[in-house]
Amino acid sequence: MKTPLGGVNALYPSLTVIAGALVQGKPNFNCIAHVGIMNYGQTHLISLSMAKVHYTNEGILANRSFSVNIPSRTMVAQADYVGLVSGKKTDKSQMFEVFYGKLESAPMISACPVCMECQLERVVDFETHDLFVGKIVETYADPGVLTGNQVDPAKVDPLLFDMGTMSYYGIGPCLAKCWNIGKSLKNQE
Amino acid sequence: MKTPLGGVNALYPSLTVIAGALVQGKPNFNCIAHVGIMNYGQTHLISLSMAKVHYTNEGILANRSFSVNIPSRTMVAQADYVGLVSGKKTDKSQMFEVFYGKLESAPMISACPVCMECQLERVVDFETHDLFVGKIVETYADPGVLTGNQVDPAKVDPLLFDMGTMSYYGIGPCLAKCWNIGKSLKNQE
Repeated sequence: MKTPLGGVNALYPSLTVIAGALVQGKPNFNCIAHVGIMNYGQTHLISLSMAKVHYTNEGILANRSFSVNIPSRTMVAQADYVGLVSGKKTDKSQMFEVFYGKLESAPMISACPVCMECQLERVVDFETHDLFVGKIVETYADPGVLTGNQVDPAKVDPLLFDMGTMSYYGIGPCLAKCWNIGKSLKNQE
Repeated sequence: MKTPLGGVNALYPSLTVIAGALVQGKPNFNCIAHVGIMNYGQTHLISLSMAKVHYTNEGILANRSFSVNIPSRTMVAQADYVGLVSGKKTDKSQMFEVFYGKLESAPMISACPVCMECQLERVVDFETHDLFVGKIVETYADPGVLTGNQVDPAKVDPLLFDMGTMSYYGIGPCLAKCWNIGKSLKNQE
């Protein structure tokens, strides 16, 4: 028998990213785990859900671009820190060495092993949150986190966020191949 | 120096869920990892991004409801299987023991330690995908995966999906507390 918990969000853990944007001409960063995958295909669209009060929102709306940077486990304190202090009060522009790609207003973090620069495709309006949907213009990865030409999550060693226990978790072992392990049941049909 | 990979989606790993819906009166299930958190607050809104060709989409649109079930590592073959075969060709209604909560058309999977029943709040239209945004009406958890009254991801032992390496990963160890570990840097300001 299951325990009803009320309408709580239990869609965790989710990937922790550091969102970057230029706000009033300066790089600013925020730690976000309320991310999403919107469209997978020729156009890759991903989302950041950010409470409307955040300082970074202003920059994303002004420049119509942002970056999504994936920190490794070694960056846990820095990732958490940029989520603790607001750009309204604290200048976070010197916190990371940044680089730019094709867009001029999506500062990416050199220390993160994977960075995506995104062009704002649309903003979906929710009660207390702006959903920023971005088209991935280019993805950059440290050669050390690639297996072949694919980003390998075991090498990225990302942070997984859980709201319930308010904790970051690491990634565990590879368990099985997708679109493969289930074939054993297909054969029993 | 980072390697540019083109505009690939590297927002992984992401949580693997089994989406449930009634399609033409029968429970149907699909394995989805393109999930998202849309609004966090009094109204909890989460999303499933599903290619328009999927059979389950028809049921979600008809009943304006769906379930989001989180399988444990022990269910990896079953989760993968429901993503391998389409409800258009294979009746998956007997695959799982199901239960219903407040909604009459959101079949939930008893074997999954965490289940959420969702009312369709809106559909956001993308190029090749329907984004189903659901309001979480009620969340159900096995008492064994709770720590206090919170769902504990270490106990859920979920499947994390990666598209690049086409693999499922487990969850790793708890690394740090959120809104906490970063305070060490705050004190250095």
